[in-house]
Amino acid sequence: MQNKPYLHTILSPGLLNLYEVKDSIVVIIDVFRATSTMATALYNGAEKIIPVAKVEDCIAIGKELNAVTAGERDGKIIEGLQHGNSPAEYPRSFIDGKTLVLTTTNGTKLLHMALDKGAVEVMTGSFPNLSSVCGHLMKANKNVILGCSAWKDRFNLEDTLFAGAVINRIKENFTIHCDSSLMAEDMYNLHKNDMYSFIRKTTHWHRLSAFGLEKDLEFCVTHDVANVLPVYKNGALVAV
Amino acid sequence: MQNKPYLHTILSPGLLNLYEVKDSIVVIIDVFRATSTMATALYNGAEKIIPVAKVEDCIAIGKELNAVTAGERDGKIIEGLQHGNSPAEYPRSFIDGKTLVLTTTNGTKLLHMALDKGAVEVMTGSFPNLSSVCGHLMKANKNVILGCSAWKDRFNLEDTLFAGAVINRIKENFTIHCDSSLMAEDMYNLHKNDMYSFIRKTTHWHRLSAFGLEKDLEFCVTHDVANVLPVYKNGALVAV
Repeated sequence: MQNKPYLHTILSPGLLNLYEVKDSIVVIIDVFRATSTMATALYNGAEKIIPVAKVEDCIAIGKELNAVTAGERDGKIIEGLQHGNSPAEYPRSFIDGKTLVLTTTNGTKLLHMALDKGAVEVMTGSFPNLSSVCGHLMKANKNVILGCSAWKDRFNLEDTLFAGAVINRIKENFTIHCDSSLMAEDMYNLHKNDMYSFIRKTTHWHRLSAFGLEKDLEFCVTHDVANVLPVYKNGALVAV
Repeated sequence: MQNKPYLHTILSPGLLNLYEVKDSIVVIIDVFRATSTMATALYNGAEKIIPVAKVEDCIAIGKELNAVTAGERDGKIIEGLQHGNSPAEYPRSFIDGKTLVLTTTNGTKLLHMALDKGAVEVMTGSFPNLSSVCGHLMKANKNVILGCSAWKDRFNLEDTLFAGAVINRIKENFTIHCDSSLMAEDMYNLHKNDMYSFIRKTTHWHRLSAFGLEKDLEFCVTHDVANVLPVYKNGALVAV
């Protein structure tokens, strides 16, 4: 019998250095809302998405490429940028064929860490593109790291729940000796049928719902409504 | 209405620096097996326990104080030390009135980090002394950090389950906006009635059960069998 590849879940970018990243596929998870918005924009025809950490880079790249710039702080569009972080802002009628430069903090940081540490492939995952991610990981036959972007390195539940959803679907194909993965799957199974009410207890919900984003957050935990596979190639996420 | 103090759960020493430790009570949790063994030895009359990280310090302090030295690597007593890490090695007939110098890696590291960052009080927690810890935290009316010692900074389930047990009992006395705490309590509630079978799925179980320590591990998740409050004072843990 062939050995199955390993799967680990990383609960915070602050713990990534404890794991062997080299030659693994890393799935960047930032459910509220970066990776959900990325999936939605690509699903609706965006040519590519360039994730950047700094606002000034977002503005500069947007100008250079004549691209759509986006980013929020405290529920408002950042000064100098054009759009926000909501998936609802990127319907096909607007984003089809365009390049989006998106400012995110937690997710972009983790993505660059994974690349620096030798990940063989980096993609983004979120409930809207759950099945695409799972399908790819099952076919790839490589070690996998499910990387939760967390919030300023603090553990968060929504990213963990997504990791659990992935594990629940693909665990038979992997060797999993990882308490984080065991916990993530348990939490997903516990809450998969009360997701909309459970996410109302999370700290991130409290942070964002103050800005009237409840509909957004519910969309972000809905399965397969933007079923695309965003893979990082030549500095941008593209649908493959 | 007076504001309730805050309670946070830290899932790994690698995440402690994200939290305000100053003036908080920090509970060091290392269920398999350091803090369970500490509770047991103090409950059985040990005068004090000196936790040290390095084997050479353990030997030197043991000699200086004519104390019992203890520590294990890979399930065996470390060369130069006298005893192991099992709670079963410290019955009253042996440990009453003695000083124990115990080498632990994960728990000792976290304890010193908490002191360095200005914790107002540091104590150890484990299932054998669950009620004592909860009783003290409810009376103290201070901010609390439940610190999981983890395994080489990787998240572990047994420490998380203990944090969840504490939260389950004392949450009404605290303000809790912390996804780690929410998760820990969920996991505890999910597994409180199948604890003996569930811990057999954890990575730490697989690590230690190879050394025939199943009985030890079951003891370490049993409530209130060594109900003492180990508090760190003048370089040692003492029962208060």
